[in-house]
Amino acid sequence: MSAIPVATGPGLPSLPARIAEPGEAITLEELRLASRNHAMPLEALRHELTPVGLHYLLIHYDIPELDPAHWRLMLGGAVEHPMVLGLGDLRARPRVTHTVTLECAGNGRAQLEPRPLSQPWLDGGVGTAEWTGTPLAPLLREAGLADAAVEVLFTGADHGVERGVEQTFARSLPLAEALREDVLLADTMNGAPLPPQHGAPLRLVVPGWYGMAHVKWLTGITVLTEPFTGFQQTTAYRLKQEADEPGEPITRIGPRALMVPPGFPDFMSRARICEPGGQLLTGRAWSGRPPVTGVEVSTDGGGSWRQASLGPAPDEYAWQPWHHHWQPPGPGEYRLMVRATDADGREQPVGQAWNRQGMVNNAVQVVDVVVRER
Amino acid sequence: MSAIPVATGPGLPSLPARIAEPGEAITLEELRLASRNHAMPLEALRHELTPVGLHYLLIHYDIPELDPAHWRLMLGGAVEHPMVLGLGDLRARPRVTHTVTLECAGNGRAQLEPRPLSQPWLDGGVGTAEWTGTPLAPLLREAGLADAAVEVLFTGADHGVERGVEQTFARSLPLAEALREDVLLADTMNGAPLPPQHGAPLRLVVPGWYGMAHVKWLTGITVLTEPFTGFQQTTAYRLKQEADEPGEPITRIGPRALMVPPGFPDFMSRARICEPGGQLLTGRAWSGRPPVTGVEVSTDGGGSWRQASLGPAPDEYAWQPWHHHWQPPGPGEYRLMVRATDADGREQPVGQAWNRQGMVNNAVQVVDVVVRER
Repeated sequence: MSAIPVATGPGLPSLPARIAEPGEAITLEELRLASRNHAMPLEALRHELTPVGLHYLLIHYDIPELDPAHWRLMLGGAVEHPMVLGLGDLRARPRVTHTVTLECAGNGRAQLEPRPLSQPWLDGGVGTAEWTGTPLAPLLREAGLADAAVEVLFTGADHGVERGVEQTFARSLPLAEALREDVLLADTMNGAPLPPQHGAPLRLVVPGWYGMAHVKWLTGITVLTEPFTGFQQTTAYRLKQEADEPGEPITRIGPRALMVPPGFPDFMSRARICEPGGQLLTGRAWSGRPPVTGVEVSTDGGGSWRQASLGPAPDEYAWQPWHHHWQPPGPGEYRLMVRATDADGREQPVGQAWNRQGMVNNAVQVVDVVVRER
Repeated sequence: MSAIPVATGPGLPSLPARIAEPGEAITLEELRLASRNHAMPLEALRHELTPVGLHYLLIHYDIPELDPAHWRLMLGGAVEHPMVLGLGDLRARPRVTHTVTLECAGNGRAQLEPRPLSQPWLDGGVGTAEWTGTPLAPLLREAGLADAAVEVLFTGADHGVERGVEQTFARSLPLAEALREDVLLADTMNGAPLPPQHGAPLRLVVPGWYGMAHVKWLTGITVLTEPFTGFQQTTAYRLKQEADEPGEPITRIGPRALMVPPGFPDFMSRARICEPGGQLLTGRAWSGRPPVTGVEVSTDGGGSWRQASLGPAPDEYAWQPWHHHWQPPGPGEYRLMVRATDADGREQPVGQAWNRQGMVNNAVQVVDVVVRER
């Protein structure tokens, strides 16, 4: 039923999933991924809209080269009227803009102990952009969904191998999610054409879900009458403890608050030095089950917590600004922490919730600072 | 004489320069830097102008927050007429555009053995952009250079600590280089306002020089009658074998050719798989002593080399496209390499030219591929 066949081939060069040995340093494979898939530097939290180039990126294979003039979107599967759409067709349809915070499901992975080896995110696998495009739901309704439809599969143009499985990146959504009015086929990011690395010419945007659902370089939309069982759905992006258990699927973003590290850094260690006197701590907080209902700050390593002032989000699934005035009692070393709670009552854990793929690690951010002498 | 005082402070938390132990894996400090300072993914070599967000970034400290409305450039030191210039003043002056390839002086560092610990570049610390702004030389002439002037110091707004030395990033150019007609004060990148991470609102562009000379977040230009002895001039960015020798200063970019890795990758290992049959190998080559006069390709691990076809550069100091048709004799493993020679007769070394800071490692790129069975 897939518009784009997903091939598999055994015997291709591929590394098995592995957990780092206790104390094992970062591997060359992780460095290669980190140098491609960059984090948002945390000082960029000062921007409500993350400038292009500072927004996080996670690209499984290579950035595909698609010629917008020849690119087509195939909408098929369990529909009455399959469609082939060009960019002009999509741009002639109703257009909406949503400001959406996207986060990689693996954000925080490299802070887990022991560390699952994959893209080694610390805490910057996040960003917020204004996505413009046409809503998906009316298009699906026009195509005429079969009564038996249960999921919608989205296929990108990015092709590679992962743990021995050759594949074209593909992920499905439950029908109810695909029919939400705020799910977009976006061709515009922050008012400019989608950059190649963010899915040009067209990507899916599913507000509230982790990044893997927002399929980039979209070429196929296929309505399914059985749940999709492809690699990125049933093998990757699962919460598991053991390699051989099916695990739970990853869906919506957990709550997280991050702060702009105050003061200035050391180049190599990124240690932070603050001037003496009061500090305005600022940052943003978000959840895929919005709104964030509270942000708390600790300046004594988690011994005590105070409510920060929380501002409004620019859109339903976009991050909210927070700030907190901190008066350090004097020079010395301090451990700053921040945590968010969302509308669903979920709260960030202070410690880790380990899982084998290093998914959804939203343990609280820790920022060590030295307040220097006057 | 500096328009912006450069403070130093001992005792601040900072790591000493260190060389990795033999076989030592990547450290957490290196990963932190790599997650901020991202490389250009090599498939982006297909773009003559690197899209914003794919161009490499090297930011020593934090991205400073500068309000363009209140930002001012101070031009002073050994001049008759010191100036304070706003963005409007600069934009009212003559404007020129140059397409320039920028490369980090540390590109290739993490491939050295043993590995100097700093930003752990593999081979993607490069990018090409169209920079628009006003030429520096007429501004210096209007300011009236003192007869005793020998260098021009450029000071950014980025502030931090490096090996115990607190500093605001600053680098000087010899007077003759600063007076080149193609040295720009750029406020525009690829036709759009400079993004925060590339130096907004204003940066220096010195075509042909490694990236450290292109001072970002420029706030001060100071004409000097003695050579600048600041950290980034006399401690960092030097070719040295021993920590205590002065070393040679880093200036112009050495020759380098890179190829788009052919085929498709494995997610984790980045191993490459090619379909059977002929391969069109493509890439770009550049040098700070242009033009590149030859690009050679080896498909047998350096056993033999063939001339690639070399195209023209879009500008004097921009990379040149090359391509080479390769017919693999059959399925199997191949080691592809590419090397450039420039107008100065400099050729990329096949092996490394080790130095303590991991500078200008332009050893040839190596891409291992598996050509699969039909």
